[in-house]
Amino acid sequence: MQQPARRTASALAVTLLCCTGLIMTLEGCASSSAPAAAPAADTKTTVQAPPAPTPPMQKPLTADESDPNKMGWMQGFPPPPDRTIRFDLAGNMFPRTRYGYSHVREFVPTRVVWHGDGPVSKLPRAERDISGVLFTDPNGTRRTFAEALKLTYTDGILVMHKGKVIYERYFGALDAHTQHIAMSVTKSFVGTLAAMLVADGKLDPAAPVTQYVPELKDTAYGDATVRQVMDMTVGVRYSENYADPNADVWAYARAGGMLPRPAGYKGPDNFYDYLTTLRKEGEHDAEFSYKTVNAETLAWIVRRASNKSLAALLSERIWQPMGAQDDAYFSVDSIGTESGGGGLNTTLRDLARFGEMIRNDGRFNGKQILPKSVIDDIRRGGDPAKFAKAGYATLPGYSYRNMWWVSGNDHHTFEARGIHGQRIYIDPVAQMTIVRYASHPVAANAANDPVTHRAYAALAEYFMQHK
Amino acid sequence: MQQPARRTASALAVTLLCCTGLIMTLEGCASSSAPAAAPAADTKTTVQAPPAPTPPMQKPLTADESDPNKMGWMQGFPPPPDRTIRFDLAGNMFPRTRYGYSHVREFVPTRVVWHGDGPVSKLPRAERDISGVLFTDPNGTRRTFAEALKLTYTDGILVMHKGKVIYERYFGALDAHTQHIAMSVTKSFVGTLAAMLVADGKLDPAAPVTQYVPELKDTAYGDATVRQVMDMTVGVRYSENYADPNADVWAYARAGGMLPRPAGYKGPDNFYDYLTTLRKEGEHDAEFSYKTVNAETLAWIVRRASNKSLAALLSERIWQPMGAQDDAYFSVDSIGTESGGGGLNTTLRDLARFGEMIRNDGRFNGKQILPKSVIDDIRRGGDPAKFAKAGYATLPGYSYRNMWWVSGNDHHTFEARGIHGQRIYIDPVAQMTIVRYASHPVAANAANDPVTHRAYAALAEYFMQHK
Repeated sequence: MQQPARRTASALAVTLLCCTGLIMTLEGCASSSAPAAAPAADTKTTVQAPPAPTPPMQKPLTADESDPNKMGWMQGFPPPPDRTIRFDLAGNMFPRTRYGYSHVREFVPTRVVWHGDGPVSKLPRAERDISGVLFTDPNGTRRTFAEALKLTYTDGILVMHKGKVIYERYFGALDAHTQHIAMSVTKSFVGTLAAMLVADGKLDPAAPVTQYVPELKDTAYGDATVRQVMDMTVGVRYSENYADPNADVWAYARAGGMLPRPAGYKGPDNFYDYLTTLRKEGEHDAEFSYKTVNAETLAWIVRRASNKSLAALLSERIWQPMGAQDDAYFSVDSIGTESGGGGLNTTLRDLARFGEMIRNDGRFNGKQILPKSVIDDIRRGGDPAKFAKAGYATLPGYSYRNMWWVSGNDHHTFEARGIHGQRIYIDPVAQMTIVRYASHPVAANAANDPVTHRAYAALAEYFMQHK
Repeated sequence: MQQPARRTASALAVTLLCCTGLIMTLEGCASSSAPAAAPAADTKTTVQAPPAPTPPMQKPLTADESDPNKMGWMQGFPPPPDRTIRFDLAGNMFPRTRYGYSHVREFVPTRVVWHGDGPVSKLPRAERDISGVLFTDPNGTRRTFAEALKLTYTDGILVMHKGKVIYERYFGALDAHTQHIAMSVTKSFVGTLAAMLVADGKLDPAAPVTQYVPELKDTAYGDATVRQVMDMTVGVRYSENYADPNADVWAYARAGGMLPRPAGYKGPDNFYDYLTTLRKEGEHDAEFSYKTVNAETLAWIVRRASNKSLAALLSERIWQPMGAQDDAYFSVDSIGTESGGGGLNTTLRDLARFGEMIRNDGRFNGKQILPKSVIDDIRRGGDPAKFAKAGYATLPGYSYRNMWWVSGNDHHTFEARGIHGQRIYIDPVAQMTIVRYASHPVAANAANDPVTHRAYAALAEYFMQHK
């Protein structure tokens, strides 16, 4: 996340680049200000931001207009040339992402998170049509929950209350059994696994990173602690300015195989090699600074501390015990390394199982899957003062802990957040968990937060009143 | 399959090229003569073939020596450089294939064959240790069934008798829940689906190919029938001579994304575009001529006739109804097209379920999954006279029907066969189904057939005597 003062990109440039689907694993892309133009026109949200400094970008297609089935992406054998999606820059842009985010494995290599051979855990149902629950959008317009789904380009949503499925809807390319990319929600999985290893006594958060990854000695991480990585307070020179073709994020994405490489590419061919190029900038522990490379570094630490791949660890410790219905998978680089920054893909139902396990203090499927202390540590959050320095207009009072976003509001809500609208939203007071997969044209959640947070808060209120 | 008279390749060249794992989807690679040198030294088989015309290749590592876990492939984060496998030519060669064949999805894009949300079907167990069952190898040496597993570089084997699991063993990189590449066993799936569509009345085997795929009008398939494609009696100019760097098989593999492309590659970027380049050679219906492009063409016909992807059709009609335990998957080209020639990957247990369903006249998991008429049509086989012209030394009396290999022997055994040892072996008289995944250093099954067939026949005899 760039700080607002540094932003100079045109809204158009930001949008074009931010919509490069598979590779945009970042929460902060496009930031709280840049996407103001289009979403304001399309979603009627008000984002606290200056007007775009260059001509406003075209109004993007609405959710209905960009429905991937109606648009005919990848239909037919072969699909028509103008309806074919490939692993290239065009293929990763909205509205193709409305198809692509539900079909990642068809474009890149992946590693399985096995669902196990035990029984699938029940997701008891107590369905209610909450489509009409009302909320007031930032412009003062009364809207329904169903409208919020369209405004946020929702591909699928599952609302749980007191452990039961209240509402489950799919749109476009997603269904109950298809894996959708979680983007940076992935980071919360990695942070949770790291916190679990801390509870196991296998990972010391106070230890230097180099205790687990000596290869990072001469990098920004050479004098950082594991805790600083877990909470993203590392001072590392790494730019996620999508309007800059020389930004580090492109090098990261090319190294990780998430973006096609130009002919004659000679750069790093995997995440590990890329991470060893990172240099220090500023001080550690001074402020929250959201950079995807921290999640990749934490993934490396987690592998070393557990001696397992991310995929194997997630399968053994969470996916199998929680009784997942389907495999999940990670996209991988050219040597099989999972992207811990944004490469996880799951079904929505399994994401709901995970969210409910977190909400229930680590308990699910009749088992204590994670120690309660791990969930307590997430919920307590990080340092709001350090978080405030990052300038997230839509996240006042938040902090960041173990790669979760912790609100500090009166419902103590906390979230896993991925660009283009991926979300686990947990409201402990309302006993509500919402999981959402989406393909919003704008990367930054700042573009959908004003609708998302108001709609979800209204739903929480509804449940508080209709227990 | 090249006819013997045309072979000029050195054994070394053939082996090097034939071991390019992921891309070698062919049964006939290396043929019955070319691999004579190494297998004769290593497996003590006698193959009816002239000596290699050039210096004999090095004796390959044995199964134990090439055990991928012992060799340390892809262990560590990252793995050591000399133990790292990538999607490149080296990565596709033995002994790396002993790891790679169980990890295909980590190297290439894939499409899921969903296992469904119904209960997993039971595979009842009645385990017996048949390791010591004896057979006589082609040199007259008495060997045990366990020895045969090593001689054939078996990664996993599952023997069923009268519907029960008698014996199940895994070696190296494979386990009961990992998908292994089926190579040309894939073709038998495509042929079975085609035969199923014939039974459905959705596909007319007597119709011209162009009725379903008009795009093939100006190709070898322009005046071929669907039946000729199903039984591989098409006259098409397409060379699978692995010693020739200009052979068509390389262009096929590059088009399908199964082989890395050189810089500046301008050729076809998907299977469809490649198939439209094929020209006629010789006459249709004159002889069996094993060419993988026929399976890709049949896959295209099957998609058009069913209006479903191969993956969706296989899931809906077979994988789900048979109660598969795990997803299967196909490798896909750059536009998501499954390889019907060799891209299927399954767990061994699900392959056993499929094999048992075929053995049981289409019935499995308490359901009639395929009409008995489909299985009858496979079992009847094709024309042995046409088959004989192809010159398979290890397959006397065989024929080919619906992309299955039908023995015509007194047990009426029939097989699905993929290079490097992939196999479904069904013995209706002994009520036995054997499924095997392997990573033999030599592509052609001619290198393992002399051991495989003798060992499996001995096991059938054992079951006949120990009912």
